[in-house]
Amino acid sequence: MSKSIAKSSVEQVAGNGLLHRRALIGRGLAFAGVVGASGVPTGAAAEPLTDAPWSLEPGNAVPAYQLPSKFAKNVVRTLANPNFEPRTSQSRTPHHLLDGAITPNGVFFTIVHGGVPDIDPNVHQLAIHGLVKRPLVFTRDMLVRYPMTSRICFIECGGNSAPLFSPQPVQADVQALHGLVSCAEWTGVRLSTLLDEAGIDPKAKWFIAEGADPPHLMRSVPLAKGMDDAMIALYQNGEPLMPGNGYPMRLVLPGYEGNMNVKYVRRIKVLPEPAMSYYESQVYTAPLPNGKAYQFFFVNEVKSFITQPSPGRTLQQGLHEISGIAYSGMGRISRVQVSADVGTSWAEAALQEPVLSMAFTRFRMPWRWSGGTAVLQSRAWDEGGNAQPTRAQFVAARGELPSVPSVLGFQNHHFNAVVSWAVDTKGEITHAYA
Amino acid sequence: MSKSIAKSSVEQVAGNGLLHRRALIGRGLAFAGVVGASGVPTGAAAEPLTDAPWSLEPGNAVPAYQLPSKFAKNVVRTLANPNFEPRTSQSRTPHHLLDGAITPNGVFFTIVHGGVPDIDPNVHQLAIHGLVKRPLVFTRDMLVRYPMTSRICFIECGGNSAPLFSPQPVQADVQALHGLVSCAEWTGVRLSTLLDEAGIDPKAKWFIAEGADPPHLMRSVPLAKGMDDAMIALYQNGEPLMPGNGYPMRLVLPGYEGNMNVKYVRRIKVLPEPAMSYYESQVYTAPLPNGKAYQFFFVNEVKSFITQPSPGRTLQQGLHEISGIAYSGMGRISRVQVSADVGTSWAEAALQEPVLSMAFTRFRMPWRWSGGTAVLQSRAWDEGGNAQPTRAQFVAARGELPSVPSVLGFQNHHFNAVVSWAVDTKGEITHAYA
Repeated sequence: MSKSIAKSSVEQVAGNGLLHRRALIGRGLAFAGVVGASGVPTGAAAEPLTDAPWSLEPGNAVPAYQLPSKFAKNVVRTLANPNFEPRTSQSRTPHHLLDGAITPNGVFFTIVHGGVPDIDPNVHQLAIHGLVKRPLVFTRDMLVRYPMTSRICFIECGGNSAPLFSPQPVQADVQALHGLVSCAEWTGVRLSTLLDEAGIDPKAKWFIAEGADPPHLMRSVPLAKGMDDAMIALYQNGEPLMPGNGYPMRLVLPGYEGNMNVKYVRRIKVLPEPAMSYYESQVYTAPLPNGKAYQFFFVNEVKSFITQPSPGRTLQQGLHEISGIAYSGMGRISRVQVSADVGTSWAEAALQEPVLSMAFTRFRMPWRWSGGTAVLQSRAWDEGGNAQPTRAQFVAARGELPSVPSVLGFQNHHFNAVVSWAVDTKGEITHAYA
Repeated sequence: MSKSIAKSSVEQVAGNGLLHRRALIGRGLAFAGVVGASGVPTGAAAEPLTDAPWSLEPGNAVPAYQLPSKFAKNVVRTLANPNFEPRTSQSRTPHHLLDGAITPNGVFFTIVHGGVPDIDPNVHQLAIHGLVKRPLVFTRDMLVRYPMTSRICFIECGGNSAPLFSPQPVQADVQALHGLVSCAEWTGVRLSTLLDEAGIDPKAKWFIAEGADPPHLMRSVPLAKGMDDAMIALYQNGEPLMPGNGYPMRLVLPGYEGNMNVKYVRRIKVLPEPAMSYYESQVYTAPLPNGKAYQFFFVNEVKSFITQPSPGRTLQQGLHEISGIAYSGMGRISRVQVSADVGTSWAEAALQEPVLSMAFTRFRMPWRWSGGTAVLQSRAWDEGGNAQPTRAQFVAARGELPSVPSVLGFQNHHFNAVVSWAVDTKGEITHAYA
């Protein structure tokens, strides 16, 4: 920290070191600490740099499709089924190593129940049939001629954050706990355009979407959602969809839980009522304390978590940025608060523009860690006034059901309560319930 | 096309088949033509699908870092120096195969003058020195603690579209002609934060940014830009920068020509005046008809081009979407017009939200091609009222100088005039001057 700035002159906005963003502008604060100024020769004429090998020798050839540096080899997804046994394979996004609001395609999370299919887009067909005047079949080449729309939105597995149903905090990092959500720009054809072309029978109220991969995952969706903002997506962050994310085409239902955004979509069948498929009646349901269960639990509700700093990191004393992700399947994020003192006091985090409906919103808050204990928490609201629940509120409504058997290995679904990271006096960060 | 919709009932908004977007809503128009309805059994109960191999067998294992489908293997960059000879290597973005506004990291364009360096982020240092009170040195690990900012913005090589200086239209596709521009979400530390920490001498008016790779590309930048929106970027679409785009850190100067966004940045030296480096005095200059040249030609001015349909594609008769990219280094795109009749009449294209300052804005326009000749053009305006020039206006101001020798192989810089794609009666599309 610069010697000319007294610690007390930086405006605190909440307890235990949360600082006002304005206080940092033009103040010359050293976030990297005194290390930042070490080893630099004084005087404007001095040369502070020496040449490293890459400054002296030619580099590598340019590839047609570029990949991350070998020095970023840990910025990858973790695999829940690395030996590819005959069961579901989850891969999780490394949020603690990312920043911004876009998830790059290489590390966008995937869940596949039967492996990643290798689909020839010239053979794959999407049929729209059922209660329509004109059943239609489309290939990808046919769809690329249609009017397109683009939208940045998150997709979250209903089972994301499921370890937090456990009565004791599971010790794992943000990737393991919250890595089944990602956010991309999706581009494709509005489903309403295709349904209009097929001509909907007035008796139609639902449709079922079915994937082409062997599990043939099917989910029933209200027709109103299909006519609103549903999309047959062909592009993900500009390029054709990744094989793990639905190539050559997937349904995107902004704000609805991941599995409903059916990948490898081959069928949209328009129906008078829901189909009561295996996945919506047996798998993607949410057991409740009274022994019943939520079915048709579509929307991922307002949620946030801190990605930096987070478990696995050891803090050094001094200034840090607390940063995380907030999102709601019901609209724009309107507000995020951060606490460093177990929720005793809260401060308003800065929201990174543009704040888009049903997209990741990055929030940021300066913080000085002075070596004491701390509990870091974030809490989000959306434009509809929906508040992220505290853990106590959430457990009262939804229970703690860690051991309900499930073929997918998820304990429960749609966990969206406040998450707590505890910092000890050594700077070590653990997952806590607070 | 649906038989129930007469062609004349669709509202035309300009000559030669440009259609109003509203006219398409709820009208059941078949963009893919009658092919769209072929081969579908009639009746709601009939099963339109047969199982392909990928519907019957398990797929592939999930990788830690996922890559595009083998069926999308042409959606890659083209390489100007595929044998990696000792000269500049350009790789170009395949805009004709992408959609949306984000360029995915795998196909973000790169230009390197000495190959792609393999930089160890634990060894690489960024020095800030010169006319500052406290010279500072940062590693990537130190910078990740700092307050971050994210911004979606394009980066365009000053030499993008240089073939269009030729007196005759060069026959090539949109990737070859306009592939040296891409758009990503960049996240990093505001340069102003670091300059504040170093403490700027009142005599300082410029800084020079220098890269760590062997060419040590250096560019002088006004200090006012450095204190405004300049960023030391660490992340590109969420993940650490690609090696071809500056890993572990690069300067991002929103709206300024590509080479000024110095990759592998190792030095910010604050100066009283520009350094007159090789790259700013010899290379990235723009020769003018009067024998002089622009120097310090920083801003990429307002520009647009149509990406679909574009040269290399053969059209089928019927409905299509005309789609392209508009952007301005001076702010938001306010308007894009499209013409299909050699500029005789123009219609307003739809702009895909969100429209962000200095970012790609995707524009879209429905079009019916009825088999006659057509010339497709787009023209953009930005919020400052700057209009993309016609080719005639541009040539009058800047000349046609295709053969000025340059070590980089560029003929000239900052071409931003209206681009024309000619459609013949066979549906073949060529580059034209119109």
